Amino acid sequence: MTFGLCTDLYELTMLQSYLENQKDKQSVFSLFVRELPQQRNYLVSCGLETMIQSVLSYSFSLKDILYLRSLHLFSEDLIRYLEDYRFCGDIYAVPEGRIVFANEPIIQVEGNLLECQVLETLILNIIHHQTLIASKSVRSVAVSKGRNIIDFGLRRAHSLESGLYGARAAYITGFFGTSNLEAGIRFGIPVYGTMAHSYILSFQTEEEAFRAYIRSFPDNPVLLIDTYDTIQAAHLVVRLIQEGQKVTAVRIDSGDIPQIVRTVREIFDTHGLIDLKILVSGGVDEYDIDRWVTDDVPIDSFAVGTCIITSSDQAYLEMAYKLVEYDGEPKVKYSPRKVTFPYKRQIVRRYQNGQMLSDEVVRYGTESDGDCLVEQVVKNGELLRPHPSLEEIRMRCTHDRALLPEGADRLDRQGYLVRVV
Amino acid sequence: MTFGLCTDLYELTMLQSYLENQKDKQSVFSLFVRELPQQRNYLVSCGLETMIQSVLSYSFSLKDILYLRSLHLFSEDLIRYLEDYRFCGDIYAVPEGRIVFANEPIIQVEGNLLECQVLETLILNIIHHQTLIASKSVRSVAVSKGRNIIDFGLRRAHSLESGLYGARAAYITGFFGTSNLEAGIRFGIPVYGTMAHSYILSFQTEEEAFRAYIRSFPDNPVLLIDTYDTIQAAHLVVRLIQEGQKVTAVRIDSGDIPQIVRTVREIFDTHGLIDLKILVSGGVDEYDIDRWVTDDVPIDSFAVGTCIITSSDQAYLEMAYKLVEYDGEPKVKYSPRKVTFPYKRQIVRRYQNGQMLSDEVVRYGTESDGDCLVEQVVKNGELLRPHPSLEEIRMRCTHDRALLPEGADRLDRQGYLVRVV
Repeated sequence: MTFGLCTDLYELTMLQSYLENQKDKQSVFSLFVRELPQQRNYLVSCGLETMIQSVLSYSFSLKDILYLRSLHLFSEDLIRYLEDYRFCGDIYAVPEGRIVFANEPIIQVEGNLLECQVLETLILNIIHHQTLIASKSVRSVAVSKGRNIIDFGLRRAHSLESGLYGARAAYITGFFGTSNLEAGIRFGIPVYGTMAHSYILSFQTEEEAFRAYIRSFPDNPVLLIDTYDTIQAAHLVVRLIQEGQKVTAVRIDSGDIPQIVRTVREIFDTHGLIDLKILVSGGVDEYDIDRWVTDDVPIDSFAVGTCIITSSDQAYLEMAYKLVEYDGEPKVKYSPRKVTFPYKRQIVRRYQNGQMLSDEVVRYGTESDGDCLVEQVVKNGELLRPHPSLEEIRMRCTHDRALLPEGADRLDRQGYLVRVV
Repeated sequence: MTFGLCTDLYELTMLQSYLENQKDKQSVFSLFVRELPQQRNYLVSCGLETMIQSVLSYSFSLKDILYLRSLHLFSEDLIRYLEDYRFCGDIYAVPEGRIVFANEPIIQVEGNLLECQVLETLILNIIHHQTLIASKSVRSVAVSKGRNIIDFGLRRAHSLESGLYGARAAYITGFFGTSNLEAGIRFGIPVYGTMAHSYILSFQTEEEAFRAYIRSFPDNPVLLIDTYDTIQAAHLVVRLIQEGQKVTAVRIDSGDIPQIVRTVREIFDTHGLIDLKILVSGGVDEYDIDRWVTDDVPIDSFAVGTCIITSSDQAYLEMAYKLVEYDGEPKVKYSPRKVTFPYKRQIVRRYQNGQMLSDEVVRYGTESDGDCLVEQVVKNGELLRPHPSLEEIRMRCTHDRALLPEGADRLDRQGYLVRVV
């Protein structure tokens, strides 16, 4: 994959004009989120590894070049520039899994104006998507009080690629696993799965289906019990276990969850099956999890899909990639409600009593004390060190979450908890 | 691309159990949307071509098989089945670009239970995403009263793939073009682009930037005029034209659009520049377009991005892929608010006075008169005829839209305009 045409046409028209006007001086572009959405108290930085891989592969194939020629828009000079394109600049970034806030430079790209400009669309697309999903999924983790959450979102993700990277984003924020096998093979994320209603329906009776499934997966069978009558199915599960069959958990995908789960739990407990787990799925979001966990509904694990993988309450972030420095001079677009920090920046985080107190966005190189969030990751087009493992990123997210101020993990907006100056 | 692992684990656990229990009889699965979202009066079927290509390529690479073995879940029988997997069944579908409603079978897959079940996640992912975006983008077209709309969404799409297929979905509903070059090369969609604020900022003055751009693209320059002061920039454009420079259009990306556009139009008209077009972008959605067009704000074209490419007001559809027939028997899951038509079905559309009156979802093969929406597209794993061109699909959508009942193209929900029985 060369990614050359994964961009907006205007990047290339601008490049042609830059080329003709010798606008090739050292530049810095900064990627940041203008404002936190109404229902987010913080963001989780995500997508850096994918982005760096794409940027360092960014080039134009022969086929791309032929297509660009066919548009009859571009000069021979530009075509030659694109044929030879390789990113040779520097990238500074907040590592994946770290918590960030509005107006903080998550990614900064430094190089000549052309090589940085042309990457705008690609970088925004990748960092926006993965940061969006991480910043959504972390909310479920925050309110789950340690219960396992599994991503079942692939079918409703906006493309296969969206499901793949969405599963990764959810995992780094603390999800337990995913149903997505591609995410399993690509990122080593633990995979989980049970059965669909169609499985139950394909047998003459529910009992026949349950028995068949237990025969096939005797080690760890999880049975879907809401195809016909959930309560009757719970009794059936008890009967199967009393017969000597093993059942690890049941999944309930519909109905009045608190009431049904309580009844099912009681049926199991009455028969001494206190280790038989209950997994709940079916349009679950972080508000459901919060309510049910707070109300002590006896759910052991959640499978979440649609709402998380599409970030359905807030399907985008106000993320921008802006020129902040050109040829040593500060560059800022002044327009109503839009302010950009000029120059390359460092984020210095300060803590008080083990909690985040404030983030100071200082000019890069002028930082002194404090926790510096921005690291150089690419120098002269070369990766400076191997990407951290997914587990490392995941631990970083857990660590940062533990340092959030009181209330930041609530689902409603708590105002600006961490001052960004 | 073999797509084998682009699926949920439970598809494969089910397959193993089907295999062990000789559950390999003829089956029909039906893909449909349970309920129209609050803000949609109809859906536009989209994604069939991508889906068929993926289904007919669906197989497991050696690497996939090694990964599946490493999970220590699957029998040798299942592994062998997957190694040899090729879809050999039939597919019946509503063609892309056609208008459909809730509970109508958009895709029906017929074959043995295993080969149909394993495709569930893949088929849902592709048809859900593209139908979602087409059903969103068509709303902008419906209220634009013939003004051009261009997709600028790639940067905010949920992955590069989401931006690519989103651009295609928008185009088939009547968009004029896209900024997405990958969509240009892959689908032949016309590409458009202007310049970013960073382009203007990289020059010492706006005038210098405008002059440079006109030099680079003398045939068709579109100038972004809201970097500093939009009104002053409009006057500057007038001055450049009076000097003899050519400018085709200006783009305005921020501010109080109705007021600013009216003022800019007046400045242009006062100087006789009635052919100088105004393109508006910046968080535009169908509600903005509807309001501005209704209020006669003199906008010639719209560039829409985030809201359309993410379907932000409704980021998913309640789409399902359900077993409706197994071994000649009807299969239906009864649960509250969820009803499924059993058996393979045809949709018969009837019209009155040139408008859609009702859709009857009859058992396939029993249809008589009326416009039959469902066509067989794949037989025994082979494509029956070449995919229609994008232009053909696009015309089909326009044609179907013209037959919608009164009010269906309004943005608010109009109740059930076309009875589905």
